Amino acid sequence: MSLLVIGTVAFDAIETPFGKTDKIVGGAATFISLAASYFKKEINLVSVVGDDFPKEAIEMLGARGINTQGLQIKAGEKTFFWSGKYHNDMNTRDTLDTQLNVLETFDPVIPDAYQNCEFLMLGNLAPAIQQTVLNRLKNRPKLVVLDTMNFWMNVALPELLALLKNIDVLTINDEEARQLSGEYSLVKAAQKILAMGPKFLIIKKGEHGALLFNDKQVFFAPALPLEDVFDPTGAGDSFAGGFIGYLAETQDISFDNMKRAIIFGSAMASFSVEKFGTERIQALSEEEVDERVQQFIDLVQFDISLI
Amino acid sequence: MSLLVIGTVAFDAIETPFGKTDKIVGGAATFISLAASYFKKEINLVSVVGDDFPKEAIEMLGARGINTQGLQIKAGEKTFFWSGKYHNDMNTRDTLDTQLNVLETFDPVIPDAYQNCEFLMLGNLAPAIQQTVLNRLKNRPKLVVLDTMNFWMNVALPELLALLKNIDVLTINDEEARQLSGEYSLVKAAQKILAMGPKFLIIKKGEHGALLFNDKQVFFAPALPLEDVFDPTGAGDSFAGGFIGYLAETQDISFDNMKRAIIFGSAMASFSVEKFGTERIQALSEEEVDERVQQFIDLVQFDISLI
Repeated sequence: MSLLVIGTVAFDAIETPFGKTDKIVGGAATFISLAASYFKKEINLVSVVGDDFPKEAIEMLGARGINTQGLQIKAGEKTFFWSGKYHNDMNTRDTLDTQLNVLETFDPVIPDAYQNCEFLMLGNLAPAIQQTVLNRLKNRPKLVVLDTMNFWMNVALPELLALLKNIDVLTINDEEARQLSGEYSLVKAAQKILAMGPKFLIIKKGEHGALLFNDKQVFFAPALPLEDVFDPTGAGDSFAGGFIGYLAETQDISFDNMKRAIIFGSAMASFSVEKFGTERIQALSEEEVDERVQQFIDLVQFDISLI
Repeated sequence: MSLLVIGTVAFDAIETPFGKTDKIVGGAATFISLAASYFKKEINLVSVVGDDFPKEAIEMLGARGINTQGLQIKAGEKTFFWSGKYHNDMNTRDTLDTQLNVLETFDPVIPDAYQNCEFLMLGNLAPAIQQTVLNRLKNRPKLVVLDTMNFWMNVALPELLALLKNIDVLTINDEEARQLSGEYSLVKAAQKILAMGPKFLIIKKGEHGALLFNDKQVFFAPALPLEDVFDPTGAGDSFAGGFIGYLAETQDISFDNMKRAIIFGSAMASFSVEKFGTERIQALSEEEVDERVQQFIDLVQFDISLI
C-alpha cells in the first residue's frame, strides 16, 4: 500500500527579487516526498546523490517518514545542481547553471522492499529513466502519475510519447500542454493529450490555479492569492506530492477524490512558495495544513440553487 | 427599484483570428444592459448615439426590456466608433481606430423617470462624466458599481481618484489593478485600492477568472474553460451586467450574494465571447443561462470535510 516516488534530489541556488541562496537542498523528489508526507505515512524514495549531499538532509527526510533506502549515494561524485534566477513577475526564470553530475549515469534501482507499490509518482526526469522504473516494477501500480517538462518535449519526444501510453495521470503546465498538443485552447489541448494515453490530465497554471481533465469532466482549482510569492521553486512538485499523497492515503482514484487531492496539492504548493526551497514544507503542523485547506474552501465556495 | 446603466453605445469593427466584422453594434452600456436583462426586468439606459445608429438596434434593446428614454440621439452626428484587432492569444489587442464623435460633447441627462434608481452601473467612460451622473441623481443609489480602464488612469487620474471615494464596487482588470496600486501582488493591490474608497473590488483576469475582495474576505470565480474564444470584446461588460443585474434583482448586497452575482456575471461573459459582438447575449434562453451556471458549479465544486 506504499507510495513510490522517483525524481531528483538536488542542490539548488536560487535568486528571486526577495533574496539569494547558496546551495540549498532541492529536487523534484524532495519536494514531492515532503509534501506527500503530510498525508501518506509510507513513502519510498528512489533517487541518486553524490557524497557531497548532507547527511542531515537525508535524516530530515527520514524524520518525515520517507524511506531513503532507494536513495543511491555515489562515492566521489557530485549531486545534481541547478541554479536559476526569477524575474520580477515570478512566473518566468532564467537557468543560470545546470550540472547533471550523478544524474548523467543514473540507473534507478528499485529495492525489493519497494516492490508492490500501489501508487507511483514519476517526478521530472528523462522519460527513458521514468520508463525504466515502470519496467522494473513486478506489478503495475494502481495509479501512475507522471510529471515532465518542455525540455523533454524538445529533446526526447518519442520516448515521452511512448511513456504517455503507460501512465494514468500527466501533470504539466499550460505552456507545455500547448507545446505537446499544438493547440492554444487548453480545452482542445486536453482532448488531444488525453488521446495520447493518460486517463487524467492536470494542467498547472501557476498563480492561476490548475485544471483537471478526464475525457468527460473538468475541474478547476484556484491558486491561493498570496501577498508575496517568495520562491516558486518546487511549487509544482509540492502540488504533485500533496496530490498523490492524498490519493495514496485514501486509496480512491475516482474523479471526485482527485478533485479533493488537487485542493490538498494546491495547499502544499501555496506553502512551498512562502520560503526558499523546502524550508516551509519541512515542518508544517496538521493545524496549518487544515487551516490552509479551509482557506481554499472559503475562496471558491458559493451557494447557488438553480430551480 | 430599477437599475440605471450608463456607458457607451457604439459601433465596433473587430478582427480576430476567427474573422473580421464590419461596423457592428457594441459599447459598454449595450453589453451591460443586455447581460443584466437576463436577471433584472427594469433597466434604464443613459447614453448617446448619432443618427447613424440603427433603429433596429434600439428596438432590440427595447425588446429585452431595456428602457432607452435616456439614450440621446444626436441629429447630424456620428456614433462613437472603435476598431481593434486581437492577437492570436486573444488576451492582447491593438486599437486600430477610435472616433469619439458624439462622445466628445456627451452630457448625460437623467430623465425624471430614472430618478430613485437603487442600483447604478457606471460603465467605462471619462471619470468626469461618471461623476456627473452621480451628481445628477437626487438620491444616492443603494449600490454604485464603477468600471474604468487604464486609459483614464493615464489621462484623468485625479478625477478617477476623486470618483473612487463615491462608489461601492470597482471592477478593473489585473494589469489595471497593478497600475492603480503600484503593487504587483493582487492581494496587496486590492488592499491599497480598497483604501482609496471602494468597499468591494473585483479584479477581472480574463481567461483566468475574477477575484472579489472586501477588507476581510476574498472570493475567486473561474472563467469557464472554452474550446474557442471567438471575440473577447464586451466580455468584461457582460460580466459587469450579469453581476449588477443579479444584485439588483435580488436586492441583496452582502458578500455572499456578490459571490453568486460574480458567477452569474462570469456565465454571461462566457456567452459573450462565443460570437462576435452582442450576437450571443441578445437571445439566450433561460435554460441556456441555467445550464451555463450549472457548468460553473460543476467546474469548481468539491467536497472536503475537515475534522
